[in-house]
Amino acid sequence: MNGFDEDRTIADLRRLAEIGKFKTGVHRPALSDVDIEARRWLCDEMRAAGLDAEIDGVGTVLGRAPRASVALLLGSHSDTVPFGGWLDGAMGCIFALAVARAWSATAPGAAVGVDVVSFTDEEGTFMACGGSRVFCGDLRLEDFDTARSASGESFTERLRALGLAGRPLARLDPARHRAFLEAHIEQGPRLIESGVAVGAVSGIVGLRRRRVTFHGQADHAGTTPMSMRRDAGAAMHAFAVAAVETLLAAGSSESVCNIGVVSVKPGAANVVPHEAEIVVEFRDLSTPVMERMDEALLSLIAARDGAGGVRIESARIGAIEPTQMDARLIAHIERAAGEVDASYMGMPSGAGHDAMILGRRIPAAMLFAPSVGGRSHHISEDTDEADIRRALRVYVRAAQSILHALGSDGRGAL
Amino acid sequence: MNGFDEDRTIADLRRLAEIGKFKTGVHRPALSDVDIEARRWLCDEMRAAGLDAEIDGVGTVLGRAPRASVALLLGSHSDTVPFGGWLDGAMGCIFALAVARAWSATAPGAAVGVDVVSFTDEEGTFMACGGSRVFCGDLRLEDFDTARSASGESFTERLRALGLAGRPLARLDPARHRAFLEAHIEQGPRLIESGVAVGAVSGIVGLRRRRVTFHGQADHAGTTPMSMRRDAGAAMHAFAVAAVETLLAAGSSESVCNIGVVSVKPGAANVVPHEAEIVVEFRDLSTPVMERMDEALLSLIAARDGAGGVRIESARIGAIEPTQMDARLIAHIERAAGEVDASYMGMPSGAGHDAMILGRRIPAAMLFAPSVGGRSHHISEDTDEADIRRALRVYVRAAQSILHALGSDGRGAL
Repeated sequence: MNGFDEDRTIADLRRLAEIGKFKTGVHRPALSDVDIEARRWLCDEMRAAGLDAEIDGVGTVLGRAPRASVALLLGSHSDTVPFGGWLDGAMGCIFALAVARAWSATAPGAAVGVDVVSFTDEEGTFMACGGSRVFCGDLRLEDFDTARSASGESFTERLRALGLAGRPLARLDPARHRAFLEAHIEQGPRLIESGVAVGAVSGIVGLRRRRVTFHGQADHAGTTPMSMRRDAGAAMHAFAVAAVETLLAAGSSESVCNIGVVSVKPGAANVVPHEAEIVVEFRDLSTPVMERMDEALLSLIAARDGAGGVRIESARIGAIEPTQMDARLIAHIERAAGEVDASYMGMPSGAGHDAMILGRRIPAAMLFAPSVGGRSHHISEDTDEADIRRALRVYVRAAQSILHALGSDGRGAL
Repeated sequence: MNGFDEDRTIADLRRLAEIGKFKTGVHRPALSDVDIEARRWLCDEMRAAGLDAEIDGVGTVLGRAPRASVALLLGSHSDTVPFGGWLDGAMGCIFALAVARAWSATAPGAAVGVDVVSFTDEEGTFMACGGSRVFCGDLRLEDFDTARSASGESFTERLRALGLAGRPLARLDPARHRAFLEAHIEQGPRLIESGVAVGAVSGIVGLRRRRVTFHGQADHAGTTPMSMRRDAGAAMHAFAVAAVETLLAAGSSESVCNIGVVSVKPGAANVVPHEAEIVVEFRDLSTPVMERMDEALLSLIAARDGAGGVRIESARIGAIEPTQMDARLIAHIERAAGEVDASYMGMPSGAGHDAMILGRRIPAAMLFAPSVGGRSHHISEDTDEADIRRALRVYVRAAQSILHALGSDGRGAL
């Protein structure tokens, strides 16, 4: 794309990482002073790129191409988890800015423009994906009334202190926003382990969570013969082993599951546990697959309920539906990778992103860059500069390709 | 035995249960006002039975047969766990008193007497088996300087407040005390489940405790493929299942084991556990058997260390050696059961008792009575009166038989 300046984009990324810098990472939680400093800087850069840019009433920055009637929406978020990495979110904002600048230079005054966004609080300091959910109309401002950070700060009071309360809210305009494209680091080890330069996200997995509770009987661990025990802990350990096997057998090749919460009561070395509890979480790209996995889990519970005198009960405590990314946009990314000679793979995203929220309203896609060691949400998060540059080239080429597909009047098919 | 009054003994048991009565149970923690009230009452009853009785400098009540040069020591403890049962400890004290009364009436002034004891703090309000350990010289008074109850009360200050500080300490006299016999409720379900009236304890099991820690890696439970995880929790569950099998295979038919302490970090549903920890406890009557079990556990740890990227380490965090009860005393109990037509079985004790402390110094034995539902340490603890009476008859007969064996000069073989 004419006017695309790769070195400047890398410099912008490093400049943004200075705002809230903490050791090798960044500490820029949503609505912190440095988060707003970063958003003001982004706003200024968007304006310099010719966009009408504002920080809205929840902290989202939206830059609109002033003369366009139709736009490709590009961006991500610029807040971080506490003491997080320099690329998570930032990469998608800076890549978007690079495309906006180049498109302004290439096709000034075109009917099809590039809008750039940095959503507020994707990381959930107050409310996960809060900015994109307000943008899409999934949340109203009142829904934040009780939102507080882990340290007890009120979202609404922070907005007021920052002078943002009462500002207009940026909104998705389905007539204008034909598609959303988000660049992001992978937050997992697939690309780096397989030595592939870029991934296009096929979809963002959904999840199910089920709490499984085992009810036995507390007994003296010295005086009660093994055969007379109703050991909730022993039943739980055996169930946990079987549950993982059962879930993966019932799932797809992409399914994952985790047992991250485990407790045993009363929790004394010399007392046979009378209660044990685990939270079983599993994810897949397909709702029917997740339901099949849940049925298999329920069958396992039913089969084991009462064995060894231990009663088992369970409750679904969480469900998020998967979001498919747009196949036409994915094809643009794949083609772009081929054109700039970057290796490519399709892959699901196991983590949530703003594109998950947008993808329920308009065609959306994500491009992943490899993370060193698969690490994220930590100051050690990093991507080799060569990999950043490769992902950037693919992203810019894919955006250009989408913009061309939309045509001079913005009515072209994706 | 001439002078043995069964009904009075039952009445005494019920009288003692009134001191500190709580609903259907008793709340009489060591050195509480009601504990001392119970000990003063016991002291008075011992004196009325002709013994020289005193409360000693830690709260133990010892009543000595005044003219005897050799004695059979009988007793148990009269303190309870908080909100405990009416028989745990009390039964052994009241049964002992019944024998002392009868023996005084039967053989006044004999060279062989009956000494009665109620040890302080068997239940460990401040220090488990504190009284019997001082009595045997295993603990000095200074060892209690830092002993505090769960509510923060100091043992030493309680002694002072009760006017007991500085009193002489009752001591085991191996030249005088030829044997110790303790009646107690079973604190487990073996007798009640098998419908047997009395058990003679073959020995008090020892125990080993090993903390096993699993070190993996925390990863995002959505983005990390199953094959790339180092899941400390999954390794722990599988190990826990195998550990029980391994320990029981290596142990004896009486061995028991328990995994009562379980933790997983960071403890979030969406994070693969980076650390898991369990405490594995196992018990047996034989030290070589426990060592064999521990070796099998260590082999299992070695075999699994590193599998799935999870490192395993372990440390022994507890060891108590078993105490064998005296076979000659057990034979007296078994014979006595036959004589009063009570069904009988030999059995290990999985719980600690004062007889465990005494048994390391002098010949000791325990007689168990069945507990309804195997329950103890709870206000629901109970034994059918018919079972109490049967156990009492066996106990009195066994004590008489031992006293006769000691002979008129106290020099006879047990």
